[in-house]
Amino acid sequence: MRRMRSDVLTVRTGGSPTVRDLTGDCASFVRDAGDGLLSVFVPHATAGLAILETGAGSDQDLLRLIDELFPADDRWRHRHGSPGHGRDHVLPAVIAPSLTVPVLGGRLQLGTWQSICLVDPNGDNPERHVRLSFLSSS
Amino acid sequence: MRRMRSDVLTVRTGGSPTVRDLTGDCASFVRDAGDGLLSVFVPHATAGLAILETGAGSDQDLLRLIDELFPADDRWRHRHGSPGHGRDHVLPAVIAPSLTVPVLGGRLQLGTWQSICLVDPNGDNPERHVRLSFLSSS
Amino acid sequence: MRRMRSDVLTVRTGGSPTVRDLTGDCASFVRDAGDGLLSVFVPHATAGLAILETGAGSDQDLLRLIDELFPADDRWRHRHGSPGHGRDHVLPAVIAPSLTVPVLGGRLQLGTWQSICLVDPNGDNPERHVRLSFLSSS
Repeated sequence: MRRMRSDVLTVRTGGSPTVRDLTGDCASFVRDAGDGLLSVFVPHATAGLAILETGAGSDQDLLRLIDELFPADDRWRHRHGSPGHGRDHVLPAVIAPSLTVPVLGGRLQLGTWQSICLVDPNGDNPERHVRLSFLSSS
Repeated sequence: MRRMRSDVLTVRTGGSPTVRDLTGDCASFVRDAGDGLLSVFVPHATAGLAILETGAGSDQDLLRLIDELFPADDRWRHRHGSPGHGRDHVLPAVIAPSLTVPVLGGRLQLGTWQSICLVDPNGDNPERHVRLSFLSSS
Repeated sequence: MRRMRSDVLTVRTGGSPTVRDLTGDCASFVRDAGDGLLSVFVPHATAGLAILETGAGSDQDLLRLIDELFPADDRWRHRHGSPGHGRDHVLPAVIAPSLTVPVLGGRLQLGTWQSICLVDPNGDNPERHVRLSFLSSS
């Protein structure tokens, strides 16, 4: 049985909410991979994935929106971790930890301004993992 | 032509909004399935899927957030069903009915605290279907 | 190497926010395609995809919800384009530009009331592209 190619990135996200661009890692992973689907998956209960333009303010805009939609206060029943951490556990319902991107000829079929980003609102985990898997057409 | 393996779960969700953990069913479905991608898909217009930690309050936190983001009142143009039911029809735009999870050696590559959950805000439909499909690497 | 079948739709979305039903195009694309996964992907940084019931008010309900969650005002750091356009760049984090739909016997496994929709809040781009890719089981 041919195995699906799959690998895990380690991403240092530090101690504050962050949007981290993973596009370079994803592009390297599928180079020479032919045609197929790239699955990007975050095996954490308090982070998600988004496809965004980065570097023009939208990453900060997203972090501010997250603070509005999911205030880090004591409204959440989930009370482990830092105060307000319960909000981090609801975020993946809205910003899901799973994305699929088509690949042709070893190239991600992203638009010009799209980047694949890890969205991590959780300052308690300074290091994160992201699983990349490629299911090829052949 | 080899067919993709696909099956439909029947889930009793009862008469009130609910978050139902499907991880056991998904794990059983892919056991002995080798490597590939699991597609989880809800063929209903008023439910979604989320990957969450369950059992520590976040499922209830999500239901409360849904009530805030999508109030079950008369603001919605869609007016079939129970009062406020229009909100159930907008929810899948934010909590999508489609998820993909990587599988290696017949095991879901979820993180320790992640569960695959059906999110059903709609008390009018006590029974739901969820389609599981496995596209293998071989 | 067998190539994944992939094609790009061109969709005229006009000069105002819109929800456009793509189900007919997706169904045509997979007809006679056998079993597998359809990837729908929008290569734009200011649009997303949703599976919704259309024609009963929910498309307008979604556009109104978008205006509430992402007000088109000057709160956004991203300031290119029309006033308030920064909100369009955050939307794909919540309404993602990537969806996967299972296909059996050349038929989308959608529920009766589900339609695959392009969600475009951005009036600055009257024409959009949507990539359809089919990864078959054989």
